[in-house]
Amino acid sequence: MDNDMLKDLWLIGIGTGSLGHLTAEGAQALKDAAIILVPQKGDGKTDLAEIRHRIIAASDTTAKVIGFEYPVRDLEQPYLDGVDAWHDDIARRWQAALASTQVSGPVAMLVWGDPALYDSTIRIAARLAPQPSVRVVPGISAIQALTAAHTLPLNTINGVVAITTGRRLRNAGWPEGAETVVVMLDGECSFTRLPPEGLMIWWGAFLGMEEQILDHGLVQDVADRIISTRQLARNEHGWIMDIYILRRDYVQNAA
Amino acid sequence: MDNDMLKDLWLIGIGTGSLGHLTAEGAQALKDAAIILVPQKGDGKTDLAEIRHRIIAASDTTAKVIGFEYPVRDLEQPYLDGVDAWHDDIARRWQAALASTQVSGPVAMLVWGDPALYDSTIRIAARLAPQPSVRVVPGISAIQALTAAHTLPLNTINGVVAITTGRRLRNAGWPEGAETVVVMLDGECSFTRLPPEGLMIWWGAFLGMEEQILDHGLVQDVADRIISTRQLARNEHGWIMDIYILRRDYVQNAA
Repeated sequence: MDNDMLKDLWLIGIGTGSLGHLTAEGAQALKDAAIILVPQKGDGKTDLAEIRHRIIAASDTTAKVIGFEYPVRDLEQPYLDGVDAWHDDIARRWQAALASTQVSGPVAMLVWGDPALYDSTIRIAARLAPQPSVRVVPGISAIQALTAAHTLPLNTINGVVAITTGRRLRNAGWPEGAETVVVMLDGECSFTRLPPEGLMIWWGAFLGMEEQILDHGLVQDVADRIISTRQLARNEHGWIMDIYILRRDYVQNAA
Repeated sequence: MDNDMLKDLWLIGIGTGSLGHLTAEGAQALKDAAIILVPQKGDGKTDLAEIRHRIIAASDTTAKVIGFEYPVRDLEQPYLDGVDAWHDDIARRWQAALASTQVSGPVAMLVWGDPALYDSTIRIAARLAPQPSVRVVPGISAIQALTAAHTLPLNTINGVVAITTGRRLRNAGWPEGAETVVVMLDGECSFTRLPPEGLMIWWGAFLGMEEQILDHGLVQDVADRIISTRQLARNEHGWIMDIYILRRDYVQNAA
């Protein structure tokens, strides 16, 4: 494919590892795609690559599947500069992978969770030149897999929900005015840095997958258990993907 | 069905009006349900009732479909008390509707968007006595339908996203520390109450439906247009369901 021929790029949210998360629109897009571009390895999460291939195998698609190597982010650079260069590098690798094929037509990518939430694929796609028409197919996010697994409403009535990262929670503390906080991308169990009184946590790892692990309770009661469960699971799988929700002054009936 | 026989209640997120939003898990749950409980009318949104019936018709289900009347919320009471009494009333109506049938087995409800996000069904289900086993099937939320339609990442890199209501935005202003604000349940175009300098808005109504309307731009440029588009659409349909995302100091390449 000539780079000029990448006219339609479809970013398909596939949910968090359950085949049941794929939407009818996502299934149809996989079927209609001419090419499916998949990261081959290098993100250290071979289970994730396997799930992508399982979704493709379970679909009705006849698309040509093309792999690309994921570059490693330069951790020496300042955070945002490093992310920037890394995104440029990924965009170049997509184009290089597509250049090797004669097939033309819509190119689909399977994006973990929902393409809009803590995922860079939309941003990377915006760097492509010439700019293709980008279509986003929403998918079940880790937040939704977590609330569903815990039968938990995300928001309190008329309450504010803040979605943040472990890094931001450590640096800036509890987001002002929020009743509920969702913490993503936290490798350091940053909930331990907050005053534990009346603080409830709903935690989950490998959400939607067979390996799913859940825990919840007052942070003062369950923090140690979550930390050790997380460490054990990480050792066992070689990686972990987890997320949690915090709520202060939790009252059962008002939740 | 005897009330004691309501053992399994499945709350199925159906997305925001597109048949394409239904997940494979949602479709399977509809198929496996013995009864599907649907609000008949009274929420003033007959289009929504129609979409639920279209989803049921398009599914493989053989479940018995049972309607219940939606009560009207007492607007004389203080807000939270009124919501509380209203939820009790809805729970009683579910049980009354189920009492009239001989069919037994899992009872499914089709929940707009995702059952965890600004929806009361999980809270109402928690009031049922005896308490059934409640299963939540996540669905595409209005937030995701909006970001997908605008090809917009929800968060900035390492940034905080606050999800709030029109009421809270009017009373408490911009949520402290948030780069991005999602506003739900806003009948008053509350974005006009914020300082407009550098404030970007991505707005959408009837998301995922054929009637979908989108607009975006700097609030100072597009506010009047959104207000009049919203009013016209509301007059035409008799109701409107809309949502928007705000971001301050918006820079195209950093978004």
